[in-house]
Amino acid sequence: MKVAVLGATGYTGMMLLRFLRLHNGVDTVIPVSSSAAGKRVSEVDRALFSSLDNKLSLTDGCYVDLDTAFSLRPDFVFSALPHLASAIACARFLEHGKVVDLSADFRLKDAAVFENVYGEEHPFPELLSDAVYGLAEWNKERIKEASLVANPGCYPTASLLPLLPLIKEGIIAANVSINALSGISGAGKSAKVSSLFAERTENMSPYLPGRSHRHLPEIAQELREVSEDADPVFTPHLVPLKQGMLVTTVAYLMRDVSDKDIADCYMDYYGESPWIRIRHPELVETRWVRGSNYCDISFKNEGDRLIIFSAIDNLIKGASGQAIENMNIMNGFPETEGLLPAFEV
Amino acid sequence: MKVAVLGATGYTGMMLLRFLRLHNGVDTVIPVSSSAAGKRVSEVDRALFSSLDNKLSLTDGCYVDLDTAFSLRPDFVFSALPHLASAIACARFLEHGKVVDLSADFRLKDAAVFENVYGEEHPFPELLSDAVYGLAEWNKERIKEASLVANPGCYPTASLLPLLPLIKEGIIAANVSINALSGISGAGKSAKVSSLFAERTENMSPYLPGRSHRHLPEIAQELREVSEDADPVFTPHLVPLKQGMLVTTVAYLMRDVSDKDIADCYMDYYGESPWIRIRHPELVETRWVRGSNYCDISFKNEGDRLIIFSAIDNLIKGASGQAIENMNIMNGFPETEGLLPAFEV
Amino acid sequence: MKVAVLGATGYTGMMLLRFLRLHNGVDTVIPVSSSAAGKRVSEVDRALFSSLDNKLSLTDGCYVDLDTAFSLRPDFVFSALPHLASAIACARFLEHGKVVDLSADFRLKDAAVFENVYGEEHPFPELLSDAVYGLAEWNKERIKEASLVANPGCYPTASLLPLLPLIKEGIIAANVSINALSGISGAGKSAKVSSLFAERTENMSPYLPGRSHRHLPEIAQELREVSEDADPVFTPHLVPLKQGMLVTTVAYLMRDVSDKDIADCYMDYYGESPWIRIRHPELVETRWVRGSNYCDISFKNEGDRLIIFSAIDNLIKGASGQAIENMNIMNGFPETEGLLPAFEV
Amino acid sequence: MKVAVLGATGYTGMMLLRFLRLHNGVDTVIPVSSSAAGKRVSEVDRALFSSLDNKLSLTDGCYVDLDTAFSLRPDFVFSALPHLASAIACARFLEHGKVVDLSADFRLKDAAVFENVYGEEHPFPELLSDAVYGLAEWNKERIKEASLVANPGCYPTASLLPLLPLIKEGIIAANVSINALSGISGAGKSAKVSSLFAERTENMSPYLPGRSHRHLPEIAQELREVSEDADPVFTPHLVPLKQGMLVTTVAYLMRDVSDKDIADCYMDYYGESPWIRIRHPELVETRWVRGSNYCDISFKNEGDRLIIFSAIDNLIKGASGQAIENMNIMNGFPETEGLLPAFEV
Repeated sequence: MKVAVLGATGYTGMMLLRFLRLHNGVDTVIPVSSSAAGKRVSEVDRALFSSLDNKLSLTDGCYVDLDTAFSLRPDFVFSALPHLASAIACARFLEHGKVVDLSADFRLKDAAVFENVYGEEHPFPELLSDAVYGLAEWNKERIKEASLVANPGCYPTASLLPLLPLIKEGIIAANVSINALSGISGAGKSAKVSSLFAERTENMSPYLPGRSHRHLPEIAQELREVSEDADPVFTPHLVPLKQGMLVTTVAYLMRDVSDKDIADCYMDYYGESPWIRIRHPELVETRWVRGSNYCDISFKNEGDRLIIFSAIDNLIKGASGQAIENMNIMNGFPETEGLLPAFEV
Repeated sequence: MKVAVLGATGYTGMMLLRFLRLHNGVDTVIPVSSSAAGKRVSEVDRALFSSLDNKLSLTDGCYVDLDTAFSLRPDFVFSALPHLASAIACARFLEHGKVVDLSADFRLKDAAVFENVYGEEHPFPELLSDAVYGLAEWNKERIKEASLVANPGCYPTASLLPLLPLIKEGIIAANVSINALSGISGAGKSAKVSSLFAERTENMSPYLPGRSHRHLPEIAQELREVSEDADPVFTPHLVPLKQGMLVTTVAYLMRDVSDKDIADCYMDYYGESPWIRIRHPELVETRWVRGSNYCDISFKNEGDRLIIFSAIDNLIKGASGQAIENMNIMNGFPETEGLLPAFEV
Repeated sequence: MKVAVLGATGYTGMMLLRFLRLHNGVDTVIPVSSSAAGKRVSEVDRALFSSLDNKLSLTDGCYVDLDTAFSLRPDFVFSALPHLASAIACARFLEHGKVVDLSADFRLKDAAVFENVYGEEHPFPELLSDAVYGLAEWNKERIKEASLVANPGCYPTASLLPLLPLIKEGIIAANVSINALSGISGAGKSAKVSSLFAERTENMSPYLPGRSHRHLPEIAQELREVSEDADPVFTPHLVPLKQGMLVTTVAYLMRDVSDKDIADCYMDYYGESPWIRIRHPELVETRWVRGSNYCDISFKNEGDRLIIFSAIDNLIKGASGQAIENMNIMNGFPETEGLLPAFEV
Repeated sequence: MKVAVLGATGYTGMMLLRFLRLHNGVDTVIPVSSSAAGKRVSEVDRALFSSLDNKLSLTDGCYVDLDTAFSLRPDFVFSALPHLASAIACARFLEHGKVVDLSADFRLKDAAVFENVYGEEHPFPELLSDAVYGLAEWNKERIKEASLVANPGCYPTASLLPLLPLIKEGIIAANVSINALSGISGAGKSAKVSSLFAERTENMSPYLPGRSHRHLPEIAQELREVSEDADPVFTPHLVPLKQGMLVTTVAYLMRDVSDKDIADCYMDYYGESPWIRIRHPELVETRWVRGSNYCDISFKNEGDRLIIFSAIDNLIKGASGQAIENMNIMNGFPETEGLLPAFEV
């Protein structure tokens, strides 16, 4: 398989190239970047420098620009471009093959909502209904058939995976209050004062609380697929670590359930999924998922309220790892192909 | 004034000694520690070594044991001893002077609740009704008259200050869902694998969620003072910073209020308090309070739910700083005496 | 005294404003910034927001531009402007009063060396001989008489203080090999990818080693004042902390000396200095100086080689704190006025 | 191959178990721990919990004690036991198969030096001459033939790899001054106040400088193999990161050499080694090696002095990774088998 990665110099693109090196179903990788076109990948990603790894040649070619990449007719494309630019590129590459879009462009089903949230008209509203929301373990059957998969945001991934089964089964009310903590790599590799080491270490802060963050409409949309009453609030916080996301949600229980009922509900939906681990009665820690594609889930049943925990690596399950997982599902590879287990002590 | 600090070698005791050096109302400081008796303070607290600061002599005497301290008849005592040991020492020193207890021993009013939470019978139940809960800005009038003040826990301090006015005024419902983040110094200076740098950096995790943590009954007790329906859940998390605590609470609004109504409510209660800052519409960041006795408060009004933020330094407003503030109130000093402003960039 | 701070929005300027609030010899503070002119200080420095500190009014005026500041005829000026811009401003304000320049513009005595290092002709070479190198404890007598003090760089401060006495007394050879570690705030508050949290946490790296860094000629110049053979190499490294600098220098011993000889040499030069602490036989830790103006010094005598340690807070003794100390010396205030002791546990 | 890991619950043992899961030449893994005997590996190493990884069964058996492990007759043994206990266990298991000892017990060739450094008589001095010092890329030919390999310390690994070729070829003098920075995981998983998060974050400090650290005799011994004049000093420092080691060595050049001469010298020795990367003219960063078995090397030629840099992950190339590499060499597997490339962005 010939795979292109659009926008291959950011954290997400760098991670995608690394996973593709490990992937046994991929023969050719085309790194695409307008700013870095002509440079070798290992000139930009200095961790890859001069490795003698057998598959380095796969990815240590030169970056090419979008037109060149298009002319190479890749079978499969990941887009890690900024939004709007991503939609345009995805639409184009769909002519040749399947696409996973890691931007927000195809996540929202309603073009009016998109325009409201992102402040611009959607360039390809007609594609919105074809795109499948790539929450891998939840939408697996639809992802198998999809040509265009919208890779979920990091916050929606960690928020939705533990909530959807419980809301669908009527165990919890859908007016959930979600509290999320993210490592700083989630802000990407762009130079901003607010992302400087000296501004973020020994510091933590909430931002865009309640219904202000762009990921809230995405979360709400997916919750409404299982409950028309869904009315989440969502408050993200920045905490001083590099990779890691922890979501703590408080929900009201709709009926009297035991811990076993809840655990069984999760196992019904995720028992066969290699990348979801139900840790109950243990809680979660982000180091146990760092570097891996795991989403760890746990909960505390307080009778009236259920407190629900999930942990992911925001750069992996929250971006590049889930994108590889979606590629695996779309192409019949094992879900774990190309991805790493947890390695952090 | 002659002041003794019991348990003066932990983080809280070290901080108390430092603040007392800066305090203009204090003539003599007696550092008390059984394990360090006979050593100089600057042998243990290596940051204080050989300072030529004028007031160093105040605190760079030798640690003495409890009996020696008692024989010196201090006018004022801070106890940072472990619980139970603290109650016994406080009861004894109350003979000579006023006491601020930084342990949990006099926070809970009901001896049966204490026994349930801490697993042992309270040694001085008859003192519980005399002790004043030292939430400085909330209980100021009662603290002025008190001989024994129970310094609040760090989590209750940060949780209660923003909630009490709004619940008392009927603005929010009292079944609040509190989410708290704490720096690792909150676990104290004892050697535990779970507090090692290599276990906590690049990691975050919840612990003792819902109604499991010992600070929950303390929070619930104080909320019930203003609303008999109070029914909080409380979930603490550890995040990788040294000093800092951030509390995010979701509460249901009881009536239609504007942002101005909420801000006005806070100003009614805290407008004269030098250590509380209402930051709305800006949110909070823990670095703005690090090293200081501030509690910064803000909120986001979502119409149905109110999301409430507070930030403190867990070692200062959450422990030693509020204790000094209580001493100031009990003795008629200015509330800011001996305490530092924010200095972290 | 009326004091202006030029370039008052960066980390150094913010710290200067805070120290000036605490300083008993200062009546009026003029914060100067072209980019922030018209804004209140507390709008930019959010840690200062709404404090009721008595002296807040001193610094919570509005930023003014350079011309306005000049028209206010300050008695004393700190310049934290970028180099070259700083020289021009300093030359102008010298008409009214004394100046401490925190840029590199007046540190190098030889205009040709300046041009070589900074790539541009020096705008006021005639002022170079008047300027006193503001290494406070070393040049105190000359600083007392100076109108223009060049505040040393952070690396030179930490490197020179422990080396100068030993080289001057012929104890160590002057071809020292200096290894320095700096926290990330040393890179300032400008938005650069290389200073992002996600690039610096869990990472360390050397940069500009040997004779490449701009601080090397500054170190060499001052060492040559005491030994014409001085020939240092200097290798800085970035490590993931916010504030802190640790310098480890290896020097060859010129003669047989005991540990006591070395400690005595230090005490001869620094025994009266409140901000230098000779910790031997204990080594140094940067947390013991964090937030303070201390320079802690220690050493290990290996018979042939001496390993010398020094620790400072790069933002304080390495910048704003030493600048305040220089102001104190230039104006007859106590050296400790306006500055804080160590407070980090 | 049937492989036992003695002392499998510390950071090193945990890492060994993880690498062995990925290793294609290993059929059976025996985790050995007296304290955890009877527990499943995934009970102790919570990152491994419930993975569906095909090879999990390999390592998610139960820990057994030493006697049980011995009765299972493993073909290959890694010992991560404390020193002395390790020597005794290694001697025993050598009856059945080959051994890599990760303790310090077989590193020093001279039993008298061992006794002097470690304070106790060596229990098996007769094995010292058989043991091969497992600096993988330097001693490869001897490691191939060895039954007992002494895995080098983390500091010696990072210090020696860049020095040995240059000293052997007479390019630099052997009285090198080594400065080393280590992440805190190097202190292991034991509960010590000095390794607490609150003691190490925002802090850095040297320890055991000059000729005080136990790794100095190990470094000196190996340097003396190539130069009888070898006389290193070595100063380690703790810096606040989890995994990473950076060594900066200053050496005097013995003759006039170009950068190309130095790079060529390195390529002569290490050009075929997959785990050593000569980065010159770029310097090194520890994040580029984090999680991998790489040792990155660079240098700056200052004419008189050469400044030499090396970076490793202290837990991997400095311990478990090099141990796996040694197993690979001893058994004819590819040097990269079971080990991971760099993955940190």
